[in-house]
Amino acid sequence: MIELALVGIGTGNPDHLTLGAIAALQQAELILLPRKGEEKAALAAVRRRIAEKHLPPTTRIAEFDLPQRRAAGDYLEAVQDWHDAIARAWMAQIAAHLPGGGRVALLVWGDPSLYDSSLRIAARLAPAGMAVRLRVVPGITSLQALTAAHAIPLNDLAAPVMLSTGRLLRARGWPEGVDVLAVMLDPGGAFEALEPEGIHIWWGGCLGLPEEALIAGPLAEVASQILARRAELRARVGWVMDIYLLRREAARHTGI
Amino acid sequence: MIELALVGIGTGNPDHLTLGAIAALQQAELILLPRKGEEKAALAAVRRRIAEKHLPPTTRIAEFDLPQRRAAGDYLEAVQDWHDAIARAWMAQIAAHLPGGGRVALLVWGDPSLYDSSLRIAARLAPAGMAVRLRVVPGITSLQALTAAHAIPLNDLAAPVMLSTGRLLRARGWPEGVDVLAVMLDPGGAFEALEPEGIHIWWGGCLGLPEEALIAGPLAEVASQILARRAELRARVGWVMDIYLLRREAARHTGI
Repeated sequence: MIELALVGIGTGNPDHLTLGAIAALQQAELILLPRKGEEKAALAAVRRRIAEKHLPPTTRIAEFDLPQRRAAGDYLEAVQDWHDAIARAWMAQIAAHLPGGGRVALLVWGDPSLYDSSLRIAARLAPAGMAVRLRVVPGITSLQALTAAHAIPLNDLAAPVMLSTGRLLRARGWPEGVDVLAVMLDPGGAFEALEPEGIHIWWGGCLGLPEEALIAGPLAEVASQILARRAELRARVGWVMDIYLLRREAARHTGI
Repeated sequence: MIELALVGIGTGNPDHLTLGAIAALQQAELILLPRKGEEKAALAAVRRRIAEKHLPPTTRIAEFDLPQRRAAGDYLEAVQDWHDAIARAWMAQIAAHLPGGGRVALLVWGDPSLYDSSLRIAARLAPAGMAVRLRVVPGITSLQALTAAHAIPLNDLAAPVMLSTGRLLRARGWPEGVDVLAVMLDPGGAFEALEPEGIHIWWGGCLGLPEEALIAGPLAEVASQILARRAELRARVGWVMDIYLLRREAARHTGI
């Protein structure tokens, strides 16, 4: 039997670690540390900090390269195949390091529930023949790192919020029924698809890392500044993850 | 000068505390602990646990009763007046305990960004004449406690999520453009306003507390079970906070 803990570690800021995350990592006999291409250096630095501060020297850490997602063809099909391949990579690591079973922890950026695939990948293990008991340890998301850094609430008073992706914003424009929209997984500048009048943006790049960058203002005024800053971060750090909150000046008071 | 840290402490589970939250509380000269009517006992227990485990005995903790929000009249106006009164209560406590300025921390359930009023109340201090520097320490939200407890993702793959309130669900029904809806601040059973066919619910009450209760299933089958459990919790604990995620069987694959 494998006990697999998906452990949210926040966005790289060591202050974001919860006591529960530290305990789950300390109890693990094996820690899986998948490496994605561009994020390798940043992940390695965060992992070293966590290991030095919180782990006994006996903890086994299995670092391994993640398979790549194919860029061509249908997006969702490519993602499904990619998740199948990642599940096989997890199982190979677990079989190699813990052939008799035991406690495994997987480091997850942010929180395993929010735009993260670990839960979907973990769901593939039992059908593939691995006896596994799953546990989720929540972590601070980039969305919370963004609102905390700007010291802003996510929602307007008694009003709804939509969480969405750069792809959807570009394809569908501003969604119905909300004046506040948080956008994740944007490959770059999807907000350019919007008519910027009356929209305010709070943007963050590399949140929680030493390179953290913040810009806020009317979208019409700061959009190009954000794109320049994003390009500069990518050039300097080698990769960039960013997130932003958009608020539309509209019927702010719903009366409900 | 007052340095005010709004510190998210999670939903009562001591494992949800982050290292940053603990540090902010340890650095504070004064901790504000506002008490709401029904939640008093639970808040007091959480506060005692945090103080015993993490705080030096010298930390001053100012417990005080929050003013009540009037139930009659326009909802948003009543909330604005209530926030004015809470800001005056904070300022009175700070003036009494730290007349020369210093570091103040406020314990916030969950995260200060999500359906919490601390940031809006804090924004009233400077206009009222208090020199204040604000800092936000993110915390694990009840939404994350819910998804972690059920071991489910918040979003479907590449799909949007709406966060909303019980009031809005009752008034407007299922929102446009999303198949996943997280509902907070429901005074009770707003999901009854929906046609339950094809909707799955993941519900949690008193998340993070010893009384934590979880129910999941097709809404048509478990709605009455949830309402009964909620009533039982309220009777036993004296109050209840709950939250749920609804997923509609629909065009799950957006192709985007």
